[in-house]
Order: sequence, then C-alpha cells, then structure tokens
Amino acid sequence: MATDFRLKDQLPQLTKRLVDTYASLGTINHLGHCPLPNYEEVISVIHDLNEILYPGFRSREGLHRGNVEFYVGDLVDRLHDCLTRQIGRALRHEAGATDSCTEEEDYEALGQAKTLLFLDRLPELRSTLATDVQAAYDGDPACKCRDEVIFCYPGLEAITVYRLAHLLYELDIPFIPRMMSEWAHSRTGIDIHPGATIGNYFFIDHGTGVVIGETCHIGEHVKVYQGVTLGALSFDTDGEGNLVRGQKRHPTIEDRVVIYANATILGGETVIGHDAVIGSSVWITRSVAPRTTVLLEKPQLRMRAEV
Amino acid sequence: MATDFRLKDQLPQLTKRLVDTYASLGTINHLGHCPLPNYEEVISVIHDLNEILYPGFRSREGLHRGNVEFYVGDLVDRLHDCLTRQIGRALRHEAGATDSCTEEEDYEALGQAKTLLFLDRLPELRSTLATDVQAAYDGDPACKCRDEVIFCYPGLEAITVYRLAHLLYELDIPFIPRMMSEWAHSRTGIDIHPGATIGNYFFIDHGTGVVIGETCHIGEHVKVYQGVTLGALSFDTDGEGNLVRGQKRHPTIEDRVVIYANATILGGETVIGHDAVIGSSVWITRSVAPRTTVLLEKPQLRMRAEV
Amino acid sequence: MATDFRLKDQLPQLTKRLVDTYASLGTINHLGHCPLPNYEEVISVIHDLNEILYPGFRSREGLHRGNVEFYVGDLVDRLHDCLTRQIGRALRHEAGATDSCTEEEDYEALGQAKTLLFLDRLPELRSTLATDVQAAYDGDPACKCRDEVIFCYPGLEAITVYRLAHLLYELDIPFIPRMMSEWAHSRTGIDIHPGATIGNYFFIDHGTGVVIGETCHIGEHVKVYQGVTLGALSFDTDGEGNLVRGQKRHPTIEDRVVIYANATILGGETVIGHDAVIGSSVWITRSVAPRTTVLLEKPQLRMRAEV
Amino acid sequence: MATDFRLKDQLPQLTKRLVDTYASLGTINHLGHCPLPNYEEVISVIHDLNEILYPGFRSREGLHRGNVEFYVGDLVDRLHDCLTRQIGRALRHEAGATDSCTEEEDYEALGQAKTLLFLDRLPELRSTLATDVQAAYDGDPACKCRDEVIFCYPGLEAITVYRLAHLLYELDIPFIPRMMSEWAHSRTGIDIHPGATIGNYFFIDHGTGVVIGETCHIGEHVKVYQGVTLGALSFDTDGEGNLVRGQKRHPTIEDRVVIYANATILGGETVIGHDAVIGSSVWITRSVAPRTTVLLEKPQLRMRAEV
Amino acid sequence: MATDFRLKDQLPQLTKRLVDTYASLGTINHLGHCPLPNYEEVISVIHDLNEILYPGFRSREGLHRGNVEFYVGDLVDRLHDCLTRQIGRALRHEAGATDSCTEEEDYEALGQAKTLLFLDRLPELRSTLATDVQAAYDGDPACKCRDEVIFCYPGLEAITVYRLAHLLYELDIPFIPRMMSEWAHSRTGIDIHPGATIGNYFFIDHGTGVVIGETCHIGEHVKVYQGVTLGALSFDTDGEGNLVRGQKRHPTIEDRVVIYANATILGGETVIGHDAVIGSSVWITRSVAPRTTVLLEKPQLRMRAEV
Amino acid sequence: MATDFRLKDQLPQLTKRLVDTYASLGTINHLGHCPLPNYEEVISVIHDLNEILYPGFRSREGLHRGNVEFYVGDLVDRLHDCLTRQIGRALRHEAGATDSCTEEEDYEALGQAKTLLFLDRLPELRSTLATDVQAAYDGDPACKCRDEVIFCYPGLEAITVYRLAHLLYELDIPFIPRMMSEWAHSRTGIDIHPGATIGNYFFIDHGTGVVIGETCHIGEHVKVYQGVTLGALSFDTDGEGNLVRGQKRHPTIEDRVVIYANATILGGETVIGHDAVIGSSVWITRSVAPRTTVLLEKPQLRMRAEV
Repeated sequence: MATDFRLKDQLPQLTKRLVDTYASLGTINHLGHCPLPNYEEVISVIHDLNEILYPGFRSREGLHRGNVEFYVGDLVDRLHDCLTRQIGRALRHEAGATDSCTEEEDYEALGQAKTLLFLDRLPELRSTLATDVQAAYDGDPACKCRDEVIFCYPGLEAITVYRLAHLLYELDIPFIPRMMSEWAHSRTGIDIHPGATIGNYFFIDHGTGVVIGETCHIGEHVKVYQGVTLGALSFDTDGEGNLVRGQKRHPTIEDRVVIYANATILGGETVIGHDAVIGSSVWITRSVAPRTTVLLEKPQLRMRAEV
Repeated sequence: MATDFRLKDQLPQLTKRLVDTYASLGTINHLGHCPLPNYEEVISVIHDLNEILYPGFRSREGLHRGNVEFYVGDLVDRLHDCLTRQIGRALRHEAGATDSCTEEEDYEALGQAKTLLFLDRLPELRSTLATDVQAAYDGDPACKCRDEVIFCYPGLEAITVYRLAHLLYELDIPFIPRMMSEWAHSRTGIDIHPGATIGNYFFIDHGTGVVIGETCHIGEHVKVYQGVTLGALSFDTDGEGNLVRGQKRHPTIEDRVVIYANATILGGETVIGHDAVIGSSVWITRSVAPRTTVLLEKPQLRMRAEV
Repeated sequence: MATDFRLKDQLPQLTKRLVDTYASLGTINHLGHCPLPNYEEVISVIHDLNEILYPGFRSREGLHRGNVEFYVGDLVDRLHDCLTRQIGRALRHEAGATDSCTEEEDYEALGQAKTLLFLDRLPELRSTLATDVQAAYDGDPACKCRDEVIFCYPGLEAITVYRLAHLLYELDIPFIPRMMSEWAHSRTGIDIHPGATIGNYFFIDHGTGVVIGETCHIGEHVKVYQGVTLGALSFDTDGEGNLVRGQKRHPTIEDRVVIYANATILGGETVIGHDAVIGSSVWITRSVAPRTTVLLEKPQLRMRAEV
Repeated sequence: MATDFRLKDQLPQLTKRLVDTYASLGTINHLGHCPLPNYEEVISVIHDLNEILYPGFRSREGLHRGNVEFYVGDLVDRLHDCLTRQIGRALRHEAGATDSCTEEEDYEALGQAKTLLFLDRLPELRSTLATDVQAAYDGDPACKCRDEVIFCYPGLEAITVYRLAHLLYELDIPFIPRMMSEWAHSRTGIDIHPGATIGNYFFIDHGTGVVIGETCHIGEHVKVYQGVTLGALSFDTDGEGNLVRGQKRHPTIEDRVVIYANATILGGETVIGHDAVIGSSVWITRSVAPRTTVLLEKPQLRMRAEV
Repeated sequence: MATDFRLKDQLPQLTKRLVDTYASLGTINHLGHCPLPNYEEVISVIHDLNEILYPGFRSREGLHRGNVEFYVGDLVDRLHDCLTRQIGRALRHEAGATDSCTEEEDYEALGQAKTLLFLDRLPELRSTLATDVQAAYDGDPACKCRDEVIFCYPGLEAITVYRLAHLLYELDIPFIPRMMSEWAHSRTGIDIHPGATIGNYFFIDHGTGVVIGETCHIGEHVKVYQGVTLGALSFDTDGEGNLVRGQKRHPTIEDRVVIYANATILGGETVIGHDAVIGSSVWITRSVAPRTTVLLEKPQLRMRAEV
Repeated sequence: MATDFRLKDQLPQLTKRLVDTYASLGTINHLGHCPLPNYEEVISVIHDLNEILYPGFRSREGLHRGNVEFYVGDLVDRLHDCLTRQIGRALRHEAGATDSCTEEEDYEALGQAKTLLFLDRLPELRSTLATDVQAAYDGDPACKCRDEVIFCYPGLEAITVYRLAHLLYELDIPFIPRMMSEWAHSRTGIDIHPGATIGNYFFIDHGTGVVIGETCHIGEHVKVYQGVTLGALSFDTDGEGNLVRGQKRHPTIEDRVVIYANATILGGETVIGHDAVIGSSVWITRSVAPRTTVLLEKPQLRMRAEV
C-alpha cells in the first residue's frame, strides 16, 4: 500500500470545517435534541405487524391454532412497547421540545394512549385487507391463487403499509406514517400518502410509479395500474407567496372505477364517477361522469416506413 | 418513562380478538399447514446464482482459474439442496397438501428432479446473458465498458432474474418464479413476468416502470427504455363474469425493435414488426409493420407566455 | 426426505460445464484479476457520508456539540481509508491492470489524492444540500417541517447521492459514481446520472421513474415530478455504426423551471428557458422560451357512456 | 501485495491429498450420512430454556404477568420443534442409520415423544433450581441478594445446564446431554457429567476445575468449592484389556457435606457420610463417617528464611 | 417428518403450568419490575474500555496520533451514555424499586454522577496497567515481547477487567462489577472478586483456577500461578446461624511475594510477608514471615515398581 | 431520563487526558504502525481448519464424497489468502517494521511461503489426530463412541489447536501460534504452549487447569487428567537479574505414562520414565524410573468427629 500517512494530517482540519457548518447550517443537522423516531425501529414495527396481519406467510413458520395466540400475544406486547416509545419521540419532536428533555414522560404517556388506540384497530383492519387480497385475485388473470397475492404482490404490500400508516395518521401521529409509507414506496415504487382515504377491495397492479396524493378520496372496488398519478393540479399560494397547506388538492375516485396504466388525474375538484374506466395514458383535469369510459383518441402518430 | 403498565392489561384481550379473526378471515392466514417456500431462502438462491453466472463480479473476491471450480462446485451443491427443498414446498402447497404432511417425500423427490433440470440449463444460460451484456454496451453511449454493465445496470439485473425465473416457470414450478421476479421488481422497478419469452441481446435502459406481461413474445436485439408497458388491452370474462385465465393477452415484439421511454403497447394480437422504432410516450393498440417508425405527431401543446 | 443422493452425482459434471463457460464466455466473468471495487464497501461509504452530512438524523443518536466532532472526525478518518482503497481499485481496473498486481501502490496513492480532494468538498456540499432541503419544504404543501424532508423524502435521498457521485465523477473516478447512483436509483426509482450538472434548490417530488441523463444541465430552483424523463433524442453513430460517446445528448433546463409528472424532454440542443412550466405528460423535443407554460392541449379523449 | 498467484497452483493438489485422507482415515470424518445434531441449535435450546426457567433475568426485558404467558408459550412451541428435530437426529445417528435416510420419520416421532417427556418436567425443575439459588445465597458471604446468584454465579449456570442435561440423559437421549454439559464446562470450568445424580440445594462456589463423574451420587444441601474432583480411582478392564463401561466408578456424597477447594475424592465405593466436612486440598480414596471433619494434617512444609 | 401435530396440543397446558410456577416460585423470576442491567450492554462496555486502554491492539485498526482522539472521544461519549443507563438500572434495582418506575430519573442522575467519577479514573488506570504488562514480560521466560502480553495473556485480560470492576466497586455500584468479573472468569478461569485490593505490577501466569477473594489485600510486584486460591478459612455465623457478611475473610499478600501453582492460602488473618515464596501445591492457613520460602516437604510418595 | 447534558461537557477534557497517556505510556498502545495480526481472522482460521480436519462434524451439513472436494478446495483457497495476510503482518511486526509500511510486500511473500509449508502438513496431521481420537475412546469408560469425542471432548479441541499452533511455531511464525493456543485455553481451560512437543495418541480428560509448558517433551500414548501441571521449577536469571529465555525448563514425559488429576511435575531435567503412573495430586520435582507407580502416601489427615 502506498497510502501516505502524512497526507492524513489534513483530516482533523477538514473535520473542524465540517463541524463548523453544523453551526452555520443548522437546519440540516439535529444536535443536542432529544432523539427522533428511530428509522430501524419503525421498519421493524412494519415487519411485526405483517406477521400479525398475515400469520404463516411471513418469516415465522410452523404456526397453527395451538401456538398462534402465544406468538401473536408476544408480538403485540413488544409492538406496544416499541410504538409507545417511537410515537412518544415523534410527538415530543413535533412539539419542539427543548434540550432538557425534562417532560419526556408526558409524551410517552400520550404515545402509549395512541398506541393502544392503534392496536385496537388491527382486528378490523384484517377484514379490510382480506377484501384487498380478494380484489387482486379477481383482478389479475395471471394470478393463480390468493396465497400468491399475499406472497408476491407489491400492490398488496403497499396497500397494507398505507392502511397501517393511515391509522396512525388519523391519530395525529407525526413523522411515523410518512416514514412507513416512504419505506413501502422504496420497495414497491408505489407512493400512497398516508392521508389519502381508500375504500375496501383496492387493487394496484404492477404499481411502479403510482402516486396517490394526500387528499385523495377513493371508493371501493377501485383498480389502479402502474404509473397512475392522482395528483394536484396546481398549488394555491397566499398573499405572500407561501403555499396554502391543508386544502383538498387531489381527485375523488368513486366506487368501481378502473384506471389503466400511466393515466394522470389531477385536481382537488376532479371527480371520477362510479363505474368509470380511465384508459391507459389518459390525462384528465376535469370530472368524468359515472359509467363513462375515457380513452385516448386514435393516437396522432407519425408512421414512417424505412426506405 | 411514564408507560402505565396497567394499561397493558388490555393487550391479551386484543390478542384474542386478533386470533379470532384467523378463524373468521381464514383466507389471509396460513396456519396448520406444511410450510410455504421461504422468502429469504429463495432470495439467497438468486444471490448464489449470480455468483455462479458472473464469477468475480459479486461478493467473492480473489477468484482465479485455480480455485473457481471449487467455489462453484460448492455453491452448486448447496443450491441443489436448497432448491430441492423450496421447490418441494412449492409443489406440495400448490397440490393443496393436507395438514398431516405425510406425503412430503414425494414432493421433495419431484423438487429434486426439477432442480436438476434447472441446474442443467445454467451453462447455456450464460451464453444468453453474455448477449444481454453486449447489447447494453452497444446500446448505451454513457457506458464505458462491459464490466460496468455487470456491475451497475439494473436492466441486466432484472433480465438475469427474469431468465432464471423463466427457466423455473417452464418447469411448472409454482410461486418461486414470481417471488424471484417481484424481488427484482422491487430492486429495479422493472416488472417482467416469468412467463414472458424474450430473445437474446435484450437491453432495458434505466428501466423504472417497465412492465412486460406474462404472454409477451419478444424477439432478439430488442431495446426497451424506462416506463414502457407491454400490457393487456382488456380481459375477457366468461359467462359468469370470471376472468378467463391463460389466453395470450400481451403483444409480440419482433427482432431489432426499439421502444423508447414510456411507450405503451397493448393487446395480445398486437405485433410490432421487426426493425420497427416506437417513439417515446407513444400509445399503441394495433400492429405495426416491420421497419416502421412510430412517433408522436407534433404534440398538441398549449404554449402560454407569462404576462 | 426423499432426496436421492445418487442423483447428486451429476453435479460435479455440471460444475465442470459451468467452469468451461468461464473460458469460452470470458466477457462476463472476472477471474485472476486484481479485485474490483467492493459494492458493500461503496454503499457503506454512502451511509457514513449521510451521517456526516445530516448528523443526528440517521443512525447515531445522542449527538450534541460536545461529541459531534469526535464522531465526525472518526468517520472522516475511516472514510479516507475506505475510499482510498476503493478508488484505487477502480482506477487500477480502468487502467486494464494485469494479473500481477505489481503496481497497486501507484493506484492507491492516486486513490488517496482523489479521496482527499473529494473530502475537501464536503463542507461546501452541505451548503448546497441545505438549499435542496429548503426547496422541498417550499415546494410541497404536504410537508409539515424541514426535518420531515431529511427523514422521509426520497427526492432528497436521490439528490444527496447524486451530488456525492457527481463530485467523484468530476474527479474522473470510474465505476464508483455509477455504483452509487444505481444504489439510489434502486431505493428511490430516481435515476440521475452522476455526470449531470444540477444547480442549488433542486426538488424532486415523489420521484419514481425520473430519469436525468448524463449531459443534462439543470439550473437553480428547478422542480421535477415523478416520471419525468430528461433524455436523449437519438444517438449518433459513426461511419461504422458504433455509437458516438461523449456528446451532449440531453436537454438544458434553466433556472426556476417546473416540470410536472411524466413529462418527457429530449435532445441535447433542447433548452427549457428560465421560469418555464412544463405540464404533466407533455412531450417536448424542441426548445421552449423563457417564462412559457406548456400544457397538453385539451386532450383528445374518446368518452363512451355505458349503455 | 506480493502474493504470487502461481504459487497457489499447488493448492488443488493439496486439496486432493486432504480429500484422500477422508477415505483412508474414515474415523474422523462424517460424510454421506444423515446429519448429526447441530451444535448451534443445541446451544440455542439452552438459551431458550434459561429464558423460561429464569424469566426476566436473561435477554428479554419488560416481562410481566400480562405478557409472560405469551412469551413462554411461544418459546415452548419453538423448543418443541427444535428439540424434536435434534433428538431425532441423535437417535438416528446412534442407531447407525444408513445413508439412505429412509427411516427418518421413525426417529423424529421418537424424538417428539422424548421431547414431550422432557418439557413436561420443566415446571418441577424450577422448584429444584429455586433450592439451588437459595443454597448459593445462604452459602456465600460475598453474595448480596438472590438476584445476584441468577445473574452472575457460574456455579448456578453449570448446575442449571447439568439439571437439564440430566433430564435428557434419563430419557436415554444420546450426544445432546454431553454437548450441553461441555458447553457449560467451557463457560464455567465446571465439568458435571449428565449422568451424575445430585439432590436439591446444591452449591458450587467459584467452580473452576470442578469435576463430577458420571456415577456420582450427591445428596441434598451439599457445598463444593473450586478444583474439587469427584472421580474414579482406577478403571477395570476385562480379560482382553478393554475398559469395562457402566460400573459405579465415582463416590457417593451424602446430605449436608461440604467439600473445600481442590479436594479430591475418588472411587465408586467411597461414601462421604452426611454432615461431613472435607478440607481444602485433602485427597481421599476411602469412605468417611458421617459428621466427620477431614483436614490436611499440619502441613509438612519446609520453611527457609532468606539469608 | 413424522411430527404429530396433535401431540403439540399439550403444550399450552404445559405453558400454563410453567407460568403458574412464576407465582409460586417468585424468587427466581423477575416480572413486572423495571429492567435489570443488561448483560450484553455491560460486556460491550468492557470491549469499548479495552479499545481505549490498549488502543491499536483490539478491533480497530489504523489508529495513529492524528485520528486517535476522535476515536477515543467518540467511544468515551458512548460509554458515558451506556454506563449511565446501566448503572442507573443497577442502583434502582438494588434500592428495591417498585413497579411504577416513577422515580427512574433520580437513579439515572445518580448513575451519571458515578459514571463520570469512573471515567475520570481511566487515565490513571492506564499507568497501573502498564506496570502489569511490564510484570508479565519480566516474569515469563516464554514471553518474547510486551505486545504479546497485551495480545494473548489471559492473566492481563483478567487483571484489566478486575481493575475496571474494582473502580466500580469502590463507587458502590451494585451488580455490574460482579457481572464484569464473572465474564472475565468465564473467559480465563481466573476469578478475582472486584472487592479485592491489588497493587501495581501484578502478574498471573496461565491462571486457570485462580481464586482471589473479596477481602484480599495484595501488594506490589506479586506473582501468582495457575490454581492458586486466596480464600476464606471458614465463615462466621451469627447467633441465628446466618453468615456474617462483610468481615475480612481472605489473606493479605505483601510486596514481591511469589505464589506457585495450586498453592492454597486461607484466612483473613493470614499474612504472607514481603519477598516470601510459596511453593507449588503448598497449603497454608497461618502467616508466613517476610523473605521466607515455603515448599512442600520431600513429598510422602509411595513408589511401586511394576513387577 | 435525568441525564444532565451539561455534565457531559467534561468528556472532551477527559478524552484529552486519555490521549495524553498514549504518548506518556507508549508501551501499551499501538499507534501509527502497520496493523497487527487480526484476532477475529486468526480465530476464523481455526474454525475453517476444523471444518477441513473433521469434515461433517462441524458447521457444514450434507457433505458427501461428491461435494467434499469442492467444499475443502474452496476453504483451502481462502485459508491460503487469509493466513498469508496474517502471517505477513506477524512477521512484519516482529521485525519492528517502521511506520512507512513500504516493505510490506516482502513480508507478505514470506507469509505466503510459510502458509504453503503449513498447509502442506495438514494431510499428515489428520493421521495424528485420528490417533488422539482413538486414545480418548480407549481411555474414557464414559465415552460411547468415537463421534462423541470429536463432538464434545474439550481435550481433543485443545489438542487439535495445539497441533495446528505447533506447526506454525515450527515455522517460526510469531504471535499467531500463541493467539491460537490462548483461544483454546479460554474455551477449555487447557493451556498447552505451542512450543511443546507431543507424540501421537495423546489424551486429556476433563482438562480444566492443565498446563503444559513450552519446553515439555511428551511421548506417545500419554494420558493426562484435569489440573495437571507440567511446569518449570524455577527460572534462571543472568548476571543482571534478567530471565534467561530459551532453556529447557519443563519435564519430559515418556511413552505410555498416565498422570492423574492435579499432579504437578516440575523441572527441565525431570524425566517420567515410560509406563509410569503418577497418582492424583502428587507433586514431583525429580525423575521417576520407567514402570513406576507414584501415589500419595496414606494421606496425613486429621479426622474430627462432630461432638
């Protein structure tokens, strides 16, 4: 090796220059505060919840009626403790807690209360997820059996995480829902904001590139294909040019609508009526009446035969 | 910590409610059955196959002619054992095996037979993959050398997994091909169904959002860019409204076709003739003659200069 | 188990056939050479750089002004050693080094020199990243606070890795920039070539499917949404049909341009003038004047009400 | 690096020579047989049993009455499966099973039966262990509280593993008891053969070098210090010079005996009567009456003052 | 597999019986309390302290004057946090803290205060350890260089852990010193109670079986070989038969004493005068004058020539 | 938590004080030098060698004649590389290499040469180890079969590591033999110096506390029990009081000698003649004629019956 150790003498000086930027550029570091929610912990929560929601399909083998209550009871207890801690951290951070950390107990108690409300919703959530699995089986001719959906379908993975994150979002828990949904986004390419509301029997096929915005309302039995955007048309700004946050900016999709690949539907006032079909690559910024099929007009293509 | 232990007293009751849903919602749990194929094992198989297919490029360093046979021979032996077990599980599960597991040995013997057929195809597969690497080098002006393709190109990663999964698919092995292709999908955003048939010298650039359906036929020397969908136009249903499964639903792409980014080609009877070029964002549901270039017509844009 | 051990007798023969292909298909194996850059090491470098760039937000908890210099100083030292080694390997491999490895020290010394130049740029890079965080907060009405951007936004993750990879690219380091950018691509679906040049205050929302080509020039305060392609129109070939490498093939985007979802902008001579707005799904191959808004014309849709 | 790759050419030849010894020296390799009990699995069984026997003291934190049944129930289920498999392997191996492995199911069924008998004894075992903990607290003036015994005392660790191994030994399970006791030996320096029988309230202090032979009988309330050997005097051989296996070769220690450090007691017919005290470093090969104290006579020392 | 799933039906009943013993045998479980010090954390503290005390000899390679302050500063900070937490737990547990855990902060503050006192002693401790290393080099003719002592000598490992545990013992920290010393005991067979006081230049050779009791006083330049016991002669009991705790029960060893293998020295009033030599296997319960050599008298052996 | 962050302000000052001792106490740190042999690497070498010496008994399951050559060949190759590197480091360090590391290649070449000599001895070593296994089976009436010896006997574990370390010692490799033998010492309590010479059919039973010195000569068919010391009588010093290193200081044990538990045999000129038997706890500093049995004379015990 020809590493020259003397050249490393400049590293302490470089370190000092870096550390100086932590004072001058304080917005992108987080020093001296109480800890933020821990990413690895939040992801492990998703894994454990998947074990509970789909027992026998994930890591743990050999579950049967005689042992599953032990397994689930043990996981629920650990989830309680882990979520209590992470939600407490998220609440404290949002509240702009000071360095002294002297009030932590209050946030942790609040975290526990919200954790219990969240866990209480899980049995009901399984009913909803069963409809999503059924919808995937009914909607994909390449699907051989329901187990395949639970095993392999990224759409179901993204929807499951969305439904968990949405429960937390409804409980006004900051940061964590978004951390969860971005984890699912990273794995599936499907970006569903935890704030969206989505009915039963939801099916996303292939899914890469799907974006579903924060204020979307989606009914039941809706099917969505890869690359579909349910987005905002434009953003209102207030008199000082700042974004107005909190408005309905994304469309409403009624029951039994099918939206084919790469279609784009924009705008908070756009309503796609029930039983409508939106064709592949269609771009829509206005409402569509129920039972309407919208397709690209015979495409304007330029054909050029090779000489 | 202000966690109130008494509040945890409700967790056993919650556990019971969750477990009750395992009886009432039995479609989304898998209890008391013989084990399903193990996801981690299947993924480790992909990693080991990559070590064999591209020796010296993946984890193991220091391979040379004198030791590579030992390394590969040891991996092949382990792959045999692991695949035999996982394929046996998949076959048993598909057969609707009962709880008693008394017939396991038959499925494992069948698993071994299929494993040997699969492994036997690997030397030949390397020839095919060499053409894919060459195609990437020939097709991307940003590519400096072939090694870079093997090292960094998500397209090659997705195609490699597809070709492995396709071999398993041809052997009528359930679940595992799809588990493999969804793993590649998650890492690359490229979703190639293991049932598709694809010729040599296949190149996918960038790749995010590419979807290639189960019944596609793709010739040799085909190039595909990000966001391309080779999909189904609509799904036939039988008299009772159920999907008809097994038909050719996806297009045929002949030799030397280039399909630019975000183009959409739909329908089982659509044939893109050899040497055709399909432009970016084009949407096609009909066949295209050989040697034809299809581009978007001068786009209908609304230009609005700012006041 | 019904595994038949005698059937395994064919595995050594299979191994031999595989190893034979390493001679006959030598382009896709790497035997007997000095080691290539190690993928896991390169990824760990990204993780460590993230710890330095956004201290307190990633793995390490409990950082404060009193200990952060120790933490960062220790990381910088380890980064120096690791990068020196990996860059040395990359340089040696690019130089077509022979089996004997006798010249390794020269490449490692060169690797150290480039490493020091790279590390020297990090303090300045933090200023740039602070503008990117600000741009995300300013640009997304769903964003509650800056911390959320650093924590959850895949756009920022991709941009951060791009900016690191770009520094290495500017230092003429082979392989490693691309390995980094493909890692980010895999996690975010955002594919930014390390060769692109991108100004401050860059924001990518959602991001899946974004492709930014090697020779793009992007100004300051630019916003890009999911599925946007900034690509090449066609590739020039020389007299012998080989690709001409190294030309400007991708567009120029001036300051304060907004490009909405799934828009496609192609061509090395295409310039999108400052303050222009490119609408969702628009397809452009020509330059656009400053301050122009380009939208899809009232789309040509076929509406069909159900009978 | 100056590694000479050509010198590595002799390694394949060396490998061949090594492999040749597997045929010529077949007693010390185990090829082509069904698998032996797995060491890591057996050790993990000890860890899990410790979690059950001393809940709240080992790895898992936060156990309370509300969750402990879930935790223990889940562990018991996993222990059942793991022990069934490992005991089945041990039984099969002892039976000299052939290569074909066709009878494995019989051994696994037998393994399960023995596993259930073993698990059934655990509640009762806790009563015995509670007496051992009490004995350590009563016997060591340096001990501050009972928790310290469970936490830190190697004597209790060795006794716990002995009591578990002894249960398995009584069930005629081969290999596994000895694997367990050697693990404890390695950690504590205390070597208790699983065949020994030992009463309640057993205490070993410090313990390094203690050896307790296979046919020892030890009563209740016995205390033993470091370096004590309860061993065999000599081994009988049969007419052909082979060892006679299975005789009582080790001493009997009656209730309330104390044996101080480094004492040696040998012989299968040696009985140390109840309430006897055996002094440090004493060497005994004959029986000692009850209530007798045996000390080294005023030691024969040679004192030599320095000139 | 022939596992009979119906036989597993008895496991829940077994679990219940086990859990019932947690109420009836409450002394050997720890349920519903605040957590005990964590064993893995305590051991990791020892590892980190070794990195600081002998930098460059343990895990971290590549330390030099330019980076060692960063490395050590970062470790010290983490040690502070980890020890504060674990010492807080130990203090709370010793105080018989109730289930409610409402007072944790007090114990953690106390833990921090003690942690800072402990860390403050580390620079001075290095001076002492340097004398121990020197003593080993001077005392073992098989030792080639000082580095070998730090690298390989179990005696130094045990002494180092003892000296750390003794610092904590002096600060009245419960549990943790003993956890540390038992860890060293397990690895080296050397059992030094943290309460003993031991002077500089202490050397233990081989060491297996060495026991040094809680109230030993050992001077400077003392050498001890394997199997040496410095123990108690007998234990006083009070009127009710309970052990009297806290008395001086173990011997005093003055400066420059050498104690050869397997010697036993007992009693709190026994003083081995300075410069004495205690021969191998000698058993002593009375004081020995300075500068005296004590050897076994010509041993009483029975020689029997074979016929 | 009540951690007071302000109190942590003293940690940087403490760090500085610690780092200052690295200059003032330079003998116990290793800064700015080329790296020492890596402990974890050396231990992994032992594990790999065990896999080769006893194939089928250690971690890897499923070995049979068809795959064992691949497995062993791959391990041998990796062992070559790893040992070459570690031996090179050890040689460089012993040579007092300077900071500049410029001569590393020479040491690495020397390391490779010694590695090849070492590996070349492994086939022959297996013959020797087979005699040791046989000796254990023949010598222990509690032993049921040879497999149990390989699986569970700490004596065999220690002897195996000794024989490996001795091969390295004979090749004049510094540090590494001792690191290996201390690892075995830690696990088994058996301390055999790598310099001792030991014949075939060596058996150590129980073993804790056994010490075998550097210059011992041990013949064939020797049996040794726990606590046996084969040590030095006293150390010669030269005129300046320094130890004379390198003399024969430890006894010679001829063929077929049995040495029972806790016996002590001292002195470089002490010879225990062939076929002698040394009884338990005997202490010997003179030679013993062949075929002699040496026992403790009827021990001088003080019996005291309780009143």
